[in-house]
Amino acid sequence: MRIVESPHDMQRICESLRLAKETIGFVPTMGAFHDGHVSLIRAARESCSQVVVSLFVNPTQFGPGEDLTKYPRMSEQDASLAEKAGVDFLFAPTEEMMYPKGYVTFVEVERLTKVLCGASRPTHFRGVTTVVAKLFNIVKPHKAFFGQKDAQQTLVIRKMVEDLNMGIEIVEMPIVREPDGLAMSSRNRYLSLEERKEALVLYRSLTEAQRLIDNGERDARRIIESIERTIRAAPHAQLDYVEVVDAWTLEQLRELKGECLIALAVRIGTTRLIDNTKVNV
Amino acid sequence: MRIVESPHDMQRICESLRLAKETIGFVPTMGAFHDGHVSLIRAARESCSQVVVSLFVNPTQFGPGEDLTKYPRMSEQDASLAEKAGVDFLFAPTEEMMYPKGYVTFVEVERLTKVLCGASRPTHFRGVTTVVAKLFNIVKPHKAFFGQKDAQQTLVIRKMVEDLNMGIEIVEMPIVREPDGLAMSSRNRYLSLEERKEALVLYRSLTEAQRLIDNGERDARRIIESIERTIRAAPHAQLDYVEVVDAWTLEQLRELKGECLIALAVRIGTTRLIDNTKVNV
Repeated sequence: MRIVESPHDMQRICESLRLAKETIGFVPTMGAFHDGHVSLIRAARESCSQVVVSLFVNPTQFGPGEDLTKYPRMSEQDASLAEKAGVDFLFAPTEEMMYPKGYVTFVEVERLTKVLCGASRPTHFRGVTTVVAKLFNIVKPHKAFFGQKDAQQTLVIRKMVEDLNMGIEIVEMPIVREPDGLAMSSRNRYLSLEERKEALVLYRSLTEAQRLIDNGERDARRIIESIERTIRAAPHAQLDYVEVVDAWTLEQLRELKGECLIALAVRIGTTRLIDNTKVNV
Repeated sequence: MRIVESPHDMQRICESLRLAKETIGFVPTMGAFHDGHVSLIRAARESCSQVVVSLFVNPTQFGPGEDLTKYPRMSEQDASLAEKAGVDFLFAPTEEMMYPKGYVTFVEVERLTKVLCGASRPTHFRGVTTVVAKLFNIVKPHKAFFGQKDAQQTLVIRKMVEDLNMGIEIVEMPIVREPDGLAMSSRNRYLSLEERKEALVLYRSLTEAQRLIDNGERDARRIIESIERTIRAAPHAQLDYVEVVDAWTLEQLRELKGECLIALAVRIGTTRLIDNTKVNV
C-alpha cells in the first residue's frame, strides 16, 4: 500500500492508472476505521483492479460547535487496517492542501439537502458534496462506495454525480452493526459505558418499527410515534428527528408505499448518532 | 466533423479518446460564432490532437428579463463554420438533456463572482460555473479555451478548476475586434445601424484610458472619470459599470500597479455590451 499526501501526485497516479486501463474503486473516509469502512473497502477490492481510500477529516462539513476538533484521528491504526483490507493507495492530504488560502468554490445539491440531517446541519451537505467533488476529480474513480448508515449522504452524492455528469457509479453497502445491533460509527467512541448501552435505543426503535410494518402497519404517523416512544424511554436520549420518507426523493410519506426510508438522529448525552432502515412495501 | 447530441455519447467518445492517448482541446460556446470563437478553435487545433466544441445556449446563466429567448441561434451556419475551422466533434445537447426534470446541483465560486458583471447579474456566474463543470465532466478536456472579452468569466472558471482539482489547463485568448475596434460578440447582432456606431464608445473609452496610462497616469479614479466622460457623450449609451481592478483578485485599485484589468459594461439601447483591457504597469 502506498500512502500519498499530495492531491497533485494522487491525481497523476490515478490518471496513469486509467491510461493503463485499470478500474479504480474509491472509498472516501474521515478515518477512524471500523468494520463499516472495511466492508466498503472489501466491496471495492472485489469489483475493481485498484482500490484508493481517502482519509481526510473534512472541516467544511462540520458546523460551528460541532465535533471537528475532537473527531477521532488515528492515522497509524487506519493505515494498518487499510493495508490489511487490501487498499492500494491511501490518500491522506492535509487541510492546507485541500483548502488552500483563498479557497472559494462550493458544490451544492438543493432540495435533498434541506431535510433530515440537512435540517439540523444546514451547511453539512454543502461541505460533503464539495469535498467529494474534489476527491472524485483527484481520484477519477470508476466506482465509489458509501455506507447506507449515511443514506441521505449517498443519495445526495448520487444526485450530484448525475446532475454534474460525473460518470461515476455510486455503490451503497448495507449498514454494519455491532453484535448487539448498534450501527458502527466513528462517533461511537465518544460514548461512555452507560451511554453506549442507551445508544441501543436507535436500533431497538427501528426493529420495533420493522415489526409493526411486518404486521401490516402502513401509517407513517403510527410508526413515528412508536419510535418516539422508544426513544423517550431512554433517560439520556434526545430525539433530533425521526422521519418516514420516500427512499429516492426524501419526501415525507403519510403512508408507506414503495421504497421507504425510516431515518432518525438521536443525541445520547453530547453525541449525535444516526441510524436508518429501508423497507419496500 | 461529427455532431453529437447526447451527453452520454459525448462522454463515452471522450473517454475513448483519452484512453487512446489523444489530447482533447475544448471550446465551450453558446453558438452564433464570430471570429472570436474561431480564434479559440484555432488555438485548440494548434495545441491538441482532438478539438471538441460545445454549442449550448445555457439557460441557467441568464437572469429573469435577460435575453435568453432572443439570444441568436444559428446552428447550421455554426456547424459549417466549426467544420471549416477544424473541429472534430460539435457537441450540441438540448436543454432537457443538460437540465433534466429534477435538476438541483450547482457549482458556485464565491467572492470573484460578486463584483463587475456579477454585481449586475447576481446568478449569472453560478449558471456559468455549473454548466462548464458539467461540460468539463462530459468532455474531459486537457485544455479549455476562453476569450479575454469575458475576462471575469475566465478568471472564475480558472478558480473553479483550481479549487475543485479539475486538472484542466485554462487558456485565455486575446479579444478579437472588428476593423473599427468593436469587440466581437454574438450580441452585436442586436444593434441597429445607429447603435452599432455608438457601440464604438466602449473601445474608444478604453483606448483613451490606455493613452492616459501610457502618459504616466496611475490614479484609477482619473482613468475611471475619463471613461465615464467618453460614455456620457454617447446619447444612447448608459454605463452599467467601469472599474479598475487587480487582474487576478478583481479587487478595486486606487492606483494602477502590477497586472490591472480595466473593465466596463455599457447598455447601448437595450443591448448590454462588455469590453476590457489589461495593463501591466
